[in-house]
Amino acid sequence: MRERMRNAGLTVIGYDRDPELSDVTSLAELVDQLPSPKVVWVMVPHGDPTHSTITELKELLSEGDVVVDGGNSRWTDDEIHAAQLAEKNIGYVDCGVSGGVWGLENGYALMAGGDADDIAKVQPAFDALRPDAENGFVHAGRVGAGHFSKMVHNGIEYAMMQAYAEGYELLEAVDMVENVTEVLDSWRVGTVVRSWLLDLLVKALEEDPGLSKVRGYAEDSGEGRWTVEAAIANAVPAPTIAASLFARFVSRQDESAAMQAVAAMRQQFGGHAVRAAQESPDVPPA
Amino acid sequence: MRERMRNAGLTVIGYDRDPELSDVTSLAELVDQLPSPKVVWVMVPHGDPTHSTITELKELLSEGDVVVDGGNSRWTDDEIHAAQLAEKNIGYVDCGVSGGVWGLENGYALMAGGDADDIAKVQPAFDALRPDAENGFVHAGRVGAGHFSKMVHNGIEYAMMQAYAEGYELLEAVDMVENVTEVLDSWRVGTVVRSWLLDLLVKALEEDPGLSKVRGYAEDSGEGRWTVEAAIANAVPAPTIAASLFARFVSRQDESAAMQAVAAMRQQFGGHAVRAAQESPDVPPA
Amino acid sequence: MRERMRNAGLTVIGYDRDPELSDVTSLAELVDQLPSPKVVWVMVPHGDPTHSTITELKELLSEGDVVVDGGNSRWTDDEIHAAQLAEKNIGYVDCGVSGGVWGLENGYALMAGGDADDIAKVQPAFDALRPDAENGFVHAGRVGAGHFSKMVHNGIEYAMMQAYAEGYELLEAVDMVENVTEVLDSWRVGTVVRSWLLDLLVKALEEDPGLSKVRGYAEDSGEGRWTVEAAIANAVPAPTIAASLFARFVSRQDESAAMQAVAAMRQQFGGHAVRAAQESPDVPPA
Amino acid sequence: MRERMRNAGLTVIGYDRDPELSDVTSLAELVDQLPSPKVVWVMVPHGDPTHSTITELKELLSEGDVVVDGGNSRWTDDEIHAAQLAEKNIGYVDCGVSGGVWGLENGYALMAGGDADDIAKVQPAFDALRPDAENGFVHAGRVGAGHFSKMVHNGIEYAMMQAYAEGYELLEAVDMVENVTEVLDSWRVGTVVRSWLLDLLVKALEEDPGLSKVRGYAEDSGEGRWTVEAAIANAVPAPTIAASLFARFVSRQDESAAMQAVAAMRQQFGGHAVRAAQESPDVPPA
Repeated sequence: MRERMRNAGLTVIGYDRDPELSDVTSLAELVDQLPSPKVVWVMVPHGDPTHSTITELKELLSEGDVVVDGGNSRWTDDEIHAAQLAEKNIGYVDCGVSGGVWGLENGYALMAGGDADDIAKVQPAFDALRPDAENGFVHAGRVGAGHFSKMVHNGIEYAMMQAYAEGYELLEAVDMVENVTEVLDSWRVGTVVRSWLLDLLVKALEEDPGLSKVRGYAEDSGEGRWTVEAAIANAVPAPTIAASLFARFVSRQDESAAMQAVAAMRQQFGGHAVRAAQESPDVPPA
Repeated sequence: MRERMRNAGLTVIGYDRDPELSDVTSLAELVDQLPSPKVVWVMVPHGDPTHSTITELKELLSEGDVVVDGGNSRWTDDEIHAAQLAEKNIGYVDCGVSGGVWGLENGYALMAGGDADDIAKVQPAFDALRPDAENGFVHAGRVGAGHFSKMVHNGIEYAMMQAYAEGYELLEAVDMVENVTEVLDSWRVGTVVRSWLLDLLVKALEEDPGLSKVRGYAEDSGEGRWTVEAAIANAVPAPTIAASLFARFVSRQDESAAMQAVAAMRQQFGGHAVRAAQESPDVPPA
Repeated sequence: MRERMRNAGLTVIGYDRDPELSDVTSLAELVDQLPSPKVVWVMVPHGDPTHSTITELKELLSEGDVVVDGGNSRWTDDEIHAAQLAEKNIGYVDCGVSGGVWGLENGYALMAGGDADDIAKVQPAFDALRPDAENGFVHAGRVGAGHFSKMVHNGIEYAMMQAYAEGYELLEAVDMVENVTEVLDSWRVGTVVRSWLLDLLVKALEEDPGLSKVRGYAEDSGEGRWTVEAAIANAVPAPTIAASLFARFVSRQDESAAMQAVAAMRQQFGGHAVRAAQESPDVPPA
Repeated sequence: MRERMRNAGLTVIGYDRDPELSDVTSLAELVDQLPSPKVVWVMVPHGDPTHSTITELKELLSEGDVVVDGGNSRWTDDEIHAAQLAEKNIGYVDCGVSGGVWGLENGYALMAGGDADDIAKVQPAFDALRPDAENGFVHAGRVGAGHFSKMVHNGIEYAMMQAYAEGYELLEAVDMVENVTEVLDSWRVGTVVRSWLLDLLVKALEEDPGLSKVRGYAEDSGEGRWTVEAAIANAVPAPTIAASLFARFVSRQDESAAMQAVAAMRQQFGGHAVRAAQESPDVPPA
């Protein structure tokens, strides 16, 4: 990201705990070298690392400066951070970032939350990072709206991945369809389901036919959980996003206590079914 | 079941392929010995065994006799069987039976479909089998209604079992709750969720604490599938019954092609995430 | 509940904001009249009413006394309340109560969380309230375990209700089944799905055939939401409980923004489908 | 489609019941004018219209000719049609077509099932219709595989639409996010969820802000149902596709019998809760 900002002519000073990735040796030095109003883009893991970085920045910055949290924080953290910085009249902008390393080449999609004045101070950076002047940036709303929007983006992503995954499994399950990868590939142009995720799935299948090198084990990064929690808090039905999340939970279980319970209840029937079978003809419960 | 019917003073002649369970050596002999109007209760596995038995009985029986399919046939088979027998003016009644071997002691719940005249001919048997004169029998509707009702009963059963199973897993998952079996046991009297299925689950847990001897692997007997199919055919939303069925499917998979696909899509990100991690600080997609 | 406790010979002093329901005019007076060690059973709405009552009791009680929260608090509140009272060495027990007014006659099911010493002080009350000496009480685990267990109970209840509801709708949807209430009634004795909830559903149908006086609108009381949140926090798949909760959300919507979006996407196709129809024969997307 | 085929230099003779759309006045005349081996592309509604057209073509065609069903038939019909035509050694190819009227400009995605020899006879038409020589065509497998693949495509489409719809509703539900359409628009370039469906949703929102002109009512065209049925038949879990289908069912209901049942069960509690409220403080069941 620094590279894209530098290429756009912005003053960019990087700091990382890894000295090889850093232009300076401390946050203090970084802040010291920035021109005013200082805009500091924080991009560290959510939770404690972000909390402590923002606490440290509050000490170092002054009225009129702006902190951008460009990490994956939960939107509920944003109000806390904004209030904390507001005590010194330091502005706060939350920014959800999509694109990963692809963004280096293509530009990142950016969803920002905060006051218009604070957003304006960061706009040159947003403009440097977005794919082009027309796309990939939104001032979504007040503080928190950026991370909230990115979170919903990721929740949708879970359900889309699960949708393709269910279709893939069904195609694989029937012997009628012989060329599953080619079928998916035929959808990439001109169909209703064409998408970047589909492109990635086809790429994965071409690199590893039958996905023989991949275990059906999927982590979740938090944002899917938060999306379902936000849906519940707002009484919004989210059946496909929740189903996608649960499918990931199941994928990580060596044994399912729930299905042990189902099997055990059926075994209680089964004991009877066995006796019933001797007394045949009788019908065991399902 | 024969025992209950005999105890009620009915003429009961049993026939089974296993000579030890049979009073006669063939269906023909059985039909021959029955008084008219002859009522023949068929209770064999659904599909071909039922089809062939009914075809054979069509040859052996006469106008005014009645065939009862007391097995687990799909309701769609009932219209076929009824039409087949109607060619000789033989009546047909479908009867869903719940209770398994417990029914021997407590009586069976019986759901019957067919014309009132045919039902009336079978009524003495129904009365002998049901728990008592007030309970456990319904003339649900026309031919097929008995098996349809029993099928829906089983669909509900799937979702109830899954509901308890999810609750059980959640109680097991938190270390705050130390006495999971005792918690479930405390629900057996006076609570909203008390039921026979709960009794069975507690019994299973008492016999095998932690269900250590049970694998989380659950078969399905067909009626859960049919229930979801019937729901779809009638545009009836059935999210919990479908979820229960899918949970059983998952429980039987050594590997999930769907979750391999999800993992593979994430790996396509992951490859980038790895590169992104080196270029830190950057945000990988979820 | 007071009545059951008084009948058991316990000293019971009631306080309510409604003077007609109160034996005393203030919490202070109530505490004053209780013998030591004082056991105060709090049963007010969760959230602020419970918080403020416990804060007030902390001032009034002394070391060795015990507060029981018998309301529907979220388990996460219990640790806060326990810690608050522990500052004065006042004990804390959380107790989930199931049974409602039925409990007055039959006894309540009680799920308690807390230290064994504190539980012991409340045991006479638990014994007075439970259905009998064998049933309806569990010391579920440490502080919070009582409310957590009751919460899971309610989550299961949601999914069980939804299971019966889906089955009921499917039976109603097909004209083959003519006597839906009688079908459900036939399940009440001897079947796998017999339960108190089924009894209630049959009772409702008998009082109001076809449920013509009831709108398909269902509130939720919080515990279903908490159950799904707890499931997510513990990576426990809970598809039927979540589906039940979402069904309630949908039931309360006059319009569904999600389905507007689905319809709008189809309309975007539809515009094309209209043009395609003119050029017929062509195939519109689904 | 005819236009694209004619532009590719193929002999194309159209027949439609609407004389204005027809080059000939009957199927017989159409077949008569085609050079041998004759390839007839059928594209009429699935079910009876397709059955009767194929039955008529069987009479008109000869050994070595090929019928293509390019409509939305269920894959199970394909084996029937193929067997029917095989009695006269007429070939059969099923072809799922995606693209609608957009295909006129961009090309259609085509999924074909059948023997290689039959496919080869139709290949010039496929090549004329597909977007380009690299994309949009697959020989998916044997007879039925084309329609099966298209069906799965549509099942995935249902779940993808539902995923975006849930995210949209959640964004609309919170007042924090002020510019929902702009948020969705920001995802169209560079994000993980970019897709043609997202483009359509943004287009719909731009044309009709807040979707105020659209009711939340969604039909289903059959292929979503078939996908879930195929999943069930193959024991493939399909939670998001099923949830999407059920959401459409719900969207079309004026009243939900299931939720009436849930409300009625709660009302049975409620009656008690009312009595309990008088005896306050007591806890009603959820």
